[in-house]
Amino acid sequence: MKKSLIALAVLATAGVASAQSSVTLFGIVDATLQHVSNSGGTSVTRLTNSGYNSSRLGFRGTEDLGGGMSASFWLEAGLANDDGQGAPTNSNNQASGAGAAVAGRQGLTFNRRSTVSLAGGWGEVRLGRDYTPQFWNLTVFDPFGTNGAGTTQTLNSIITGVTAVRASNTIGYFLPGNLGGFYGQLQTYRGENPSGAVTSSDGNGNGLRVGFANGPFNVALAVSKTKYAAGDVKQNNIGGEWNFGMAKLQAHYAKDTNGTLDGKGWLIGALVPVGAGEIRAAYSRYRTDLAGNPTSKKLALGYVHNLSKRTALYATYARVKNSGGAAASAVPGAATGPAVNDSSTGYDFGIRHSF
Amino acid sequence: MKKSLIALAVLATAGVASAQSSVTLFGIVDATLQHVSNSGGTSVTRLTNSGYNSSRLGFRGTEDLGGGMSASFWLEAGLANDDGQGAPTNSNNQASGAGAAVAGRQGLTFNRRSTVSLAGGWGEVRLGRDYTPQFWNLTVFDPFGTNGAGTTQTLNSIITGVTAVRASNTIGYFLPGNLGGFYGQLQTYRGENPSGAVTSSDGNGNGLRVGFANGPFNVALAVSKTKYAAGDVKQNNIGGEWNFGMAKLQAHYAKDTNGTLDGKGWLIGALVPVGAGEIRAAYSRYRTDLAGNPTSKKLALGYVHNLSKRTALYATYARVKNSGGAAASAVPGAATGPAVNDSSTGYDFGIRHSF
Amino acid sequence: MKKSLIALAVLATAGVASAQSSVTLFGIVDATLQHVSNSGGTSVTRLTNSGYNSSRLGFRGTEDLGGGMSASFWLEAGLANDDGQGAPTNSNNQASGAGAAVAGRQGLTFNRRSTVSLAGGWGEVRLGRDYTPQFWNLTVFDPFGTNGAGTTQTLNSIITGVTAVRASNTIGYFLPGNLGGFYGQLQTYRGENPSGAVTSSDGNGNGLRVGFANGPFNVALAVSKTKYAAGDVKQNNIGGEWNFGMAKLQAHYAKDTNGTLDGKGWLIGALVPVGAGEIRAAYSRYRTDLAGNPTSKKLALGYVHNLSKRTALYATYARVKNSGGAAASAVPGAATGPAVNDSSTGYDFGIRHSF
Repeated sequence: MKKSLIALAVLATAGVASAQSSVTLFGIVDATLQHVSNSGGTSVTRLTNSGYNSSRLGFRGTEDLGGGMSASFWLEAGLANDDGQGAPTNSNNQASGAGAAVAGRQGLTFNRRSTVSLAGGWGEVRLGRDYTPQFWNLTVFDPFGTNGAGTTQTLNSIITGVTAVRASNTIGYFLPGNLGGFYGQLQTYRGENPSGAVTSSDGNGNGLRVGFANGPFNVALAVSKTKYAAGDVKQNNIGGEWNFGMAKLQAHYAKDTNGTLDGKGWLIGALVPVGAGEIRAAYSRYRTDLAGNPTSKKLALGYVHNLSKRTALYATYARVKNSGGAAASAVPGAATGPAVNDSSTGYDFGIRHSF
Repeated sequence: MKKSLIALAVLATAGVASAQSSVTLFGIVDATLQHVSNSGGTSVTRLTNSGYNSSRLGFRGTEDLGGGMSASFWLEAGLANDDGQGAPTNSNNQASGAGAAVAGRQGLTFNRRSTVSLAGGWGEVRLGRDYTPQFWNLTVFDPFGTNGAGTTQTLNSIITGVTAVRASNTIGYFLPGNLGGFYGQLQTYRGENPSGAVTSSDGNGNGLRVGFANGPFNVALAVSKTKYAAGDVKQNNIGGEWNFGMAKLQAHYAKDTNGTLDGKGWLIGALVPVGAGEIRAAYSRYRTDLAGNPTSKKLALGYVHNLSKRTALYATYARVKNSGGAAASAVPGAATGPAVNDSSTGYDFGIRHSF
Repeated sequence: MKKSLIALAVLATAGVASAQSSVTLFGIVDATLQHVSNSGGTSVTRLTNSGYNSSRLGFRGTEDLGGGMSASFWLEAGLANDDGQGAPTNSNNQASGAGAAVAGRQGLTFNRRSTVSLAGGWGEVRLGRDYTPQFWNLTVFDPFGTNGAGTTQTLNSIITGVTAVRASNTIGYFLPGNLGGFYGQLQTYRGENPSGAVTSSDGNGNGLRVGFANGPFNVALAVSKTKYAAGDVKQNNIGGEWNFGMAKLQAHYAKDTNGTLDGKGWLIGALVPVGAGEIRAAYSRYRTDLAGNPTSKKLALGYVHNLSKRTALYATYARVKNSGGAAASAVPGAATGPAVNDSSTGYDFGIRHSF
């Protein structure tokens, strides 16, 4: 998004010509020809989206308030550019906040991010729908960025539920950027249930992420808890990377709890620059303590070829092995998944264009 | 919206470089932490939207046709920026034109306004979905602008139905702006039912608003009628304001009819500038002639602190007393309302950022 | 769309100031007062949209990759500007990909086009939702452009199904523009069903269109086949036009097959420039080999008056005669259609504004 376009803009109100402001229209259109085959014999070939980066359309802007203060907004919609649909959001951080799909009718929502912020030397306060602190380590320290066939197995929504990636109705605080490499995000979000009911705190939660980045080094820790009548969800993880120049190594570890159910996973991966391109590799696994200890292990390999800073071609191969009763697909959301303990293989061949 | 940004634009067609035109991307992101408690004991705390101004995203533009003529368009979508959803519209000015919500899936529609216009020295003809003439007096002459906890009780959709604020399928005419302070809007709208049925004119309606503004003084009158098989709705009101400099006083009176059912209400309020801010106060009541004469009375107090012309912080307090069988909430649309004849208290603490 | 606005834009990334790129916000808002009456006595009057050109809102852009290569995207949403709704898409090129409407709640989708492209001297590869090759001849060689009361009878979706106009999940190839007037589009699209089922190839299809344009002359041929378990659909057509200066004559012929069911139709029409305006006329008919050979014949006459290149007023009259069991309305999608073998008359009076 650093590469996005800025529409030149001027304040329409006469007499404030000295105030500089901008509104940016930005987006990504990523299309991928994807094939998934399962060892049991089922397979599917699709033209789908977001194989390298998540497709999106957004509007954002910042206003300089003077005295080091600024106000800003960010509206970012997910995009299913293979068929033109948008993507749904979740209205209350509970399963009840995500109604059933109606084929072909999902309009644009700002499900990815929908926030207004006030920032200053003391940091940033952000209100609205946003990423949760507990998500970042799983995507920042994943060579495949939780997209496409390469997506890490540690992003396991069976255990972590609807606030694993984003939450609605959030109030967040971010540390300022001048703390010598320390960074942090504190967030609280609400399910917005009336008082008195047994479910009054369903969907309420809190998350915290703190990290330190310096030169080639970056490490961060996140803890979170979301309340549900059926059992609270805790999603905790740690991740880090070291850039050796010829390669960037990444790793993360995740421990999740949903009521009495536990899940643990880890990833190790690398990004290797090769001319105008980049080789990507990751190995991840996730195990829950359901009966049989269902376990899935994924090996993902890929190459990205940059035609420019905005446009890239890419190919990804991934193979998942399931055991103990697991049935994870090589590609999350594929139309046909493997049978229990079967393996699954996925390919992406795509183009990512950002603006 | 006067403060919105104009994207610099040029005609792409070569050879018409002399024609100046503009397309404007504009919007408001207003987030509010809202608490409502009812005397019966129920309460709810939410991060919601539009506590001061309605959140929106829009596109509009004007083309100079020469000879004093112009063509223009206006597409404006409501925005639930607390969770990223859009807002629904009504397709036929009848209850049947507003289908049931599916949680988290409401995409952007241009429900707030969706029009194309032709204008000249003779005024403006406007086609599409637009505000109804019968709405303006209730919001223009309300210190809280029909938003958030402060919203006037006179905006009572139980009596006035789905065309109380906007209508679809409208043809409107606006007087030109050079009539020495006189202004006016005439509108007709259609339910678009086939001929022959008993319901063939359901959702058809007309509205008229005329006003006069001069210096500190502004007054306007509106009458309207919408046809329904279950009983026609008439929504008539008058409002005015006088700006004394140290304070602007506002008042309006509304008389509504739905079949054999009547409702009457009024508001008196004030806006008092204080440095970079503004104190807001209003008292409103509404009574229907249902059994018991259900009556709700609201006192609303608030303060808006402008960080800039585009960005403001605000706080609002409101208390509604219900009697005669009324059960109005201090905040329209809150997740939990008061029991019959209970009182309701609401708070908003928010930020409004426009672009 | 050639007349749309280009928002001036610069690359935000420092150091690439030499790379020129653009993102364009474009659209059409077309509102029409439409009356349809059927010889049986039913009628309806509506304010509707897209009587002359399809209402839309879009975002598109192109990036120069150097060496004659470019990347581009195109996101274009249909718009029901009479009530503010968007329009649905079809997710899988089958009837199951288009769920039931919920009144007033259809958000914006990029149903009209949603693509990313890579282009060079060898042509263009395009991925996403796009027009099918089999559609173009019916609209390009129709004086009324398949919009409003004048829409050709040869666009008959009863026979041709959901890929008659557009398809999702397409991979397309377009010939380059420098072949001395030859042009062509080859497209394949997928229903994305899992392997193994009897319906595994439902919604898969291919289309090809080739044409030749030179001076006043333009002719094109299209063939297509879409697979369905219930019977494959073939949609083949040819069209052409000759511009005599004082008039442009257009004609096309279509032969469709759906399983064992055949349909055939043709159109002949003319566009006659008159000062700042244009007279439009077309006669079209369509006959299927269902029992009785249902046949509908349409005469359409219209006039478009251009206030500018972007803004036009228009009027259209159309009359459909049905026989053999046909019941086509003068206006596709009207709220009330004629009884079997009745005739139907339609009028449009509207304004088209593009940006």
